[in-house]
Amino acid sequence: MTRIVILGGGFGGLNVAKGLGSADAEVTVIDRSNHHLFQPLLYQVSTATLSPADISMPIRHVLRRQLNTRVILAEVADIDLEGQRVVLQDAASVPFDYLVVATGATHSYFGHSEWEKVARGLKTIEDATLIRSEVLAAFEFAERTDDIKEQTAWTTFLIVGAGPTGVEMAGAVMEIARMVLKDEFRTVATRTARVVLIEGTDRVLPVYDPSLSERARRDLERLGVEVQLETRVTSVDSEGVSTNKGRIEGRTVIWAAGVQASPVAKWLKAPGDRVGRVSVTPKLSVAEWPNIYVIGDCAAVPGPDGKLLPGLAAVAQQQGQYVGRQLSRVVAGELPGPDFEYKDKGVMATIGRSRAIAQFGGFKLSGVVAWTVWLFVHIMLLVGFRNKVSVLMQWAWAYFTWDRGARLITTSGLDKSRSSRPSPNLNGVAVPLATMAPAKAPKDQE
Amino acid sequence: MTRIVILGGGFGGLNVAKGLGSADAEVTVIDRSNHHLFQPLLYQVSTATLSPADISMPIRHVLRRQLNTRVILAEVADIDLEGQRVVLQDAASVPFDYLVVATGATHSYFGHSEWEKVARGLKTIEDATLIRSEVLAAFEFAERTDDIKEQTAWTTFLIVGAGPTGVEMAGAVMEIARMVLKDEFRTVATRTARVVLIEGTDRVLPVYDPSLSERARRDLERLGVEVQLETRVTSVDSEGVSTNKGRIEGRTVIWAAGVQASPVAKWLKAPGDRVGRVSVTPKLSVAEWPNIYVIGDCAAVPGPDGKLLPGLAAVAQQQGQYVGRQLSRVVAGELPGPDFEYKDKGVMATIGRSRAIAQFGGFKLSGVVAWTVWLFVHIMLLVGFRNKVSVLMQWAWAYFTWDRGARLITTSGLDKSRSSRPSPNLNGVAVPLATMAPAKAPKDQE
Repeated sequence: MTRIVILGGGFGGLNVAKGLGSADAEVTVIDRSNHHLFQPLLYQVSTATLSPADISMPIRHVLRRQLNTRVILAEVADIDLEGQRVVLQDAASVPFDYLVVATGATHSYFGHSEWEKVARGLKTIEDATLIRSEVLAAFEFAERTDDIKEQTAWTTFLIVGAGPTGVEMAGAVMEIARMVLKDEFRTVATRTARVVLIEGTDRVLPVYDPSLSERARRDLERLGVEVQLETRVTSVDSEGVSTNKGRIEGRTVIWAAGVQASPVAKWLKAPGDRVGRVSVTPKLSVAEWPNIYVIGDCAAVPGPDGKLLPGLAAVAQQQGQYVGRQLSRVVAGELPGPDFEYKDKGVMATIGRSRAIAQFGGFKLSGVVAWTVWLFVHIMLLVGFRNKVSVLMQWAWAYFTWDRGARLITTSGLDKSRSSRPSPNLNGVAVPLATMAPAKAPKDQE
Repeated sequence: MTRIVILGGGFGGLNVAKGLGSADAEVTVIDRSNHHLFQPLLYQVSTATLSPADISMPIRHVLRRQLNTRVILAEVADIDLEGQRVVLQDAASVPFDYLVVATGATHSYFGHSEWEKVARGLKTIEDATLIRSEVLAAFEFAERTDDIKEQTAWTTFLIVGAGPTGVEMAGAVMEIARMVLKDEFRTVATRTARVVLIEGTDRVLPVYDPSLSERARRDLERLGVEVQLETRVTSVDSEGVSTNKGRIEGRTVIWAAGVQASPVAKWLKAPGDRVGRVSVTPKLSVAEWPNIYVIGDCAAVPGPDGKLLPGLAAVAQQQGQYVGRQLSRVVAGELPGPDFEYKDKGVMATIGRSRAIAQFGGFKLSGVVAWTVWLFVHIMLLVGFRNKVSVLMQWAWAYFTWDRGARLITTSGLDKSRSSRPSPNLNGVAVPLATMAPAKAPKDQE
């Protein structure tokens, strides 16, 4: 029987697998995590609105009714092109007749991997719960001191990169500081927290229409976010970032700047572009190996305007559906279908509560209308009825109460050295904590 | 102003703090985690029904309206009795006029701390997500091999200790194997998984009425759990446990056997009992230091029958309420109230779907009636409306679909050496994975 192996259970790989449900083939999906993740809402896990389970679903659960499909939890080490098999980290291997590489991308620090330790990126559930812990813990550390300089260092949040993730994170962190936590601290005035969004180009959301970028910047600034454009980060450390325009102090740095494709170029012994994507034919396969397809963030695919398609869920999804259809035909002995064509259904980003921007072809939306569309579209796209209901409920709760349902600091990934950093006004001797400020002091200081 | 310091934001400490909301005092609550945890439902996080956020709530959120109260995220290092101050891990210190120690208990391995690495206990959110990952990953490892011996080792779950946690875990893990996962694997027959509940005494739930213990044992066995009584564990390793009755092989060991109070005896320079609890006066304070109270799992308090009160949420809660009232009186210059008296409102445990046992004084309940009461009582006891609604929704989902909403394997705490353990049929050379079993094979094997 024809053996089809799919690497990755994200938007790309999962759609390939779904398209092969009734194919006369043995389908194997390999992913290093057991769940499909709805990445567009991952920033809401990192900002305590949603729980990890709300936006993830076991891959084998999604595919449970496809009896020709098995799911393997394993990490890919290499692809043996001559032997036509996928080699796993533990040296087991899986032979294939057709292979689909849909392993996505991770964050990239432009060659400075040492920044990763202090500037967390947001790609996995583990990343999200870690950022959540760091953001919430920063306020806890600030509460422990009455040294204003220390408080400022802890309550300054630096977000590098103003793409959709950076913009959405900035809005959400600002709302936590200004609204969610405002009555819960006694020493630190959480409402005075700074959120600085640092972007190298001359506008936020650079892939959007300039008028929408401008609108997003205004919305962010109205929320209280400081937007610093044309600012390029030159170094990152545990006390802040240095940029071409000077130093910005802040102990919590979130990295939303660069992505890097999985090592697909290395696996396929093919040249990768600047971010590691490999070229594919108009049918999304590799020129040298027509039985190997590459899709999603791993593939450099030109769009109708000649520019490469962006790393969006929608792109991966359409490519996955396309390859699923192609392989179904091949397995059934039919002729392959036409070339892949991307249908642009638009892009959208939310900027805090009740504000968003959206762009559908030439049609532009902003404000509360765009936000309503954003909510509706994201609920619809979520996999699974339970997740839809749960997310809707958490959103309603957050909207009506200004509360966040998942304000958990967990220590699993939290850097121990960071969380045990002593308050700077201590020199190893027993000194009292900051004396308690008079009730409601934070409000008076506004 | 009178300074009252409360160590621990669990059922005990939180209720002390709540009782002091209108006291003319400066109240400080210190906890090493930022959230109050509803421990009676923690096993449902470890078995993928609930999300961590469903059963936890930031302590400072619960107490946000008490303007005389501050909350500090910090770990206690020691208590300076002469200096009347609490010393924190980072050497900061907090002076007190009155102190309440409510720091709870952790699991105890009877002096074999080396067992902790392979036999996880269940006390914190981190423990629960770790056990969840290990249980779910065990099935993933089993799926990767067609060596029946290997599959059996991965799908045998050993639970040590048949108190409420052990009994509830055993039932829940059995249901996952038999019902939740049954159609999702192709190589391993998850329904043939073994769950072995190992108990040193001669019955499960030893603190219950013997007739209920018997009923619980029958219910467990009907679910498929193997109950091994009068079986004492002599050693634990990564391949199983050795007992006085012989060896039991199984790669996932869950520890629900012993608890050990926080180092309160050391802090107070007082003698601790077998599990580290210290004696207190009938007013729950320490004989030598009448301004220091000890409650919950840290205190050895005789009940009406002369036996020490068990480590239950209800005990800690009533003691917390009592100390809150006492301290309110003291602060107001009133005479202290009467001695603490525990009102036994009953105990209950659930055994899988639709079965539970409950005991209210002489009144006993079992089966579906007890289960309904169990559901109702636990929803009512949960802190926060959002959590009540969310838990109710997750339960309804689990009940009607036989699904579990939070089947996430996260790697944060997962022992890397364990998860990368190579399939034993591999010797460093590339060999294929188990060939795919014919569709529906697991069902045929029943």
